[in-house]
Amino acid sequence: MLTALGAMQLAILEAKKGWGHVSPNPPVGCVILDKSGNFLAKGHHRKFGGDHAEIDALKEVREPKLLDGATLFVTLEPCAHHGKTPPCAEALAKLPLSKVVYGLVDPNPLVAGKGLEILKSAGKIVQSIASLVGESSASVNDDLEDLAEVFLFNQRERKTFASVKVATTLDGNMAHVSGESQWLTSEEARDHAQYLRGLHDAVIIGAGTFRHDNPRLNVRHAKFENKKNHVIVVNTSGSCLEKIEDSALYQSHEPRRIIVAAGESNASVLKNKSSDVEIWLLPERDGLIDLSSVLKKAYASGLMSVFVEGGARLISQFIEHNHAHRLYQFIAPQILGRRSGRAFTESVTSLTFAARVTMKRPVWTPMGPDVLLSGRF
Amino acid sequence: MLTALGAMQLAILEAKKGWGHVSPNPPVGCVILDKSGNFLAKGHHRKFGGDHAEIDALKEVREPKLLDGATLFVTLEPCAHHGKTPPCAEALAKLPLSKVVYGLVDPNPLVAGKGLEILKSAGKIVQSIASLVGESSASVNDDLEDLAEVFLFNQRERKTFASVKVATTLDGNMAHVSGESQWLTSEEARDHAQYLRGLHDAVIIGAGTFRHDNPRLNVRHAKFENKKNHVIVVNTSGSCLEKIEDSALYQSHEPRRIIVAAGESNASVLKNKSSDVEIWLLPERDGLIDLSSVLKKAYASGLMSVFVEGGARLISQFIEHNHAHRLYQFIAPQILGRRSGRAFTESVTSLTFAARVTMKRPVWTPMGPDVLLSGRF
Repeated sequence: MLTALGAMQLAILEAKKGWGHVSPNPPVGCVILDKSGNFLAKGHHRKFGGDHAEIDALKEVREPKLLDGATLFVTLEPCAHHGKTPPCAEALAKLPLSKVVYGLVDPNPLVAGKGLEILKSAGKIVQSIASLVGESSASVNDDLEDLAEVFLFNQRERKTFASVKVATTLDGNMAHVSGESQWLTSEEARDHAQYLRGLHDAVIIGAGTFRHDNPRLNVRHAKFENKKNHVIVVNTSGSCLEKIEDSALYQSHEPRRIIVAAGESNASVLKNKSSDVEIWLLPERDGLIDLSSVLKKAYASGLMSVFVEGGARLISQFIEHNHAHRLYQFIAPQILGRRSGRAFTESVTSLTFAARVTMKRPVWTPMGPDVLLSGRF
Repeated sequence: MLTALGAMQLAILEAKKGWGHVSPNPPVGCVILDKSGNFLAKGHHRKFGGDHAEIDALKEVREPKLLDGATLFVTLEPCAHHGKTPPCAEALAKLPLSKVVYGLVDPNPLVAGKGLEILKSAGKIVQSIASLVGESSASVNDDLEDLAEVFLFNQRERKTFASVKVATTLDGNMAHVSGESQWLTSEEARDHAQYLRGLHDAVIIGAGTFRHDNPRLNVRHAKFENKKNHVIVVNTSGSCLEKIEDSALYQSHEPRRIIVAAGESNASVLKNKSSDVEIWLLPERDGLIDLSSVLKKAYASGLMSVFVEGGARLISQFIEHNHAHRLYQFIAPQILGRRSGRAFTESVTSLTFAARVTMKRPVWTPMGPDVLLSGRF
């Protein structure tokens, strides 16, 4: 027997299997318990365009009569609209299930509450997990929000979710003042950074990183074979377009979008346009591209999440202007010294001690000799 | 049944119970297995002047005949000299034990190897744990070295062991530029910092911290009730002597030594001497007290370990001049911004990326919302 909390936690774990594969959909997981509360099936949304989690779980149930009196747990309200697949709420309404327990209400106005209504009209008991678990409700809600944070942010803000990734020393430096930075962190940490890159739709770098590191920025992780990830180079002047066809980024011939975000005052750069490179001309602020406009444009062009990988200047700007939504900081047990390093917060200021930034729901994970902090801004 | 490795690991855990109570002795733990390899007894050196670990464990053995064919595991070679207690090696030689497995050879030239010789002469089998555990030998040796690091350092270097403690943001800041720093870390972290303070014989602070924070610096932790810890204020000019009798440090009336380490060029400060305050006049380097001379003087005066608690300037000097031996860094998931913070490495420089400092055997421990890094320089 599983408790309601246990079933929902299992559904959350299931959902995470879809991370990085289902965008622009949210990751969703589902667990079905039979009428006695015993485990019957689990499933998740595996990839964009594929079965939703509920259908994936139902396929595991051999005999429909096992569903008599069963309870279905799903991390997000079942959908009510005809998208790539038929609406799940209608499919569930026809089954002999007696109860549906959901995690979050869908923030998408096309669906919000409608799936629940269809199920109630069909005579199902419909309950939120928060209403069932008493004291644990805050914690399970946090887990559900974290699970679907990209989707929830997209729906609420109509902007792309930005995760900042940095590897630093104990004293907050990303690199030596000479520019050298390879490698601060261990293989374990760098492998996990590849996994995190795979979770996102696109990588963002600044022009300095493009020129200095000439990175490929493809996804090199076993969980994301053949995943194409897109790349945005933020470069107010647009000057990197001149050399882009010689870059490792371009020459890796990955089937992906390569985007240069340039300032609209530099429209003349269009004349250098390579047919394979998208150019976004965006508003500027104080002579630099307004990062908010990058996130709006990225959202409009179908990129739901971006992984901001450097350098110090761009990362610092994302934090300074409150456009970073999650921080992944790998910390190596090393010291460079304040005077010798480039900090990931070089342009960030707190007018007072109280005005400092505190990450929400921080999670620390030791990784080889290093540690990973993950937290929400 | 316990394996040899398991028995030694248990002895190490036992030994740690004495941390903070046995100085200037090392912490030592002991486990006894009977002739069939079953657990018989464990013990540790509880406080300076009390029984050594072997004797503490033997007191747990009800009938001497249980020792027939038994094996005794001890983290450090049994002592051979008459100190506060009779030599353990002689006591063990008289018992029906058949085997003694030791961790480290005593680095103290008064004892080194002599305890083992006494046991061998008495017909005991004497083996090092490293020789018994094959592939695990490097790891168990590291654990043994970490356990007794203060004592080993004292014996080898004839200097006091210095641990640096800092609480920082993710970007390496200890405080806001305004000086404000209370509190970056959580109660859990601050409570653990009190425990760490209790492990050391004395606290060291700089004159800035003395003036700005006016700290009491007593040990406020359940594991160290009534522990007196001594305090050293590093103050080249000696000017803090003028106000010391008004300080919280002085007025807490703890039964402890209060020491002001001043530069020898400021011998005139002696005229302000309070009868309750020791003054050390020490060599200077570039106008500041040579920290090496602080550690030599502290050792000579019976302080085996010091806990360097701030401020940024003093901590940074300890690191810069390679006088810090262990780092305890509490990191709060917060960002102050490079321009707004005082770094704990403000005077530290690495000429090249390769010249950066890498901590040895780093251990990361999540603590509330924060993390603690502990590592050896």
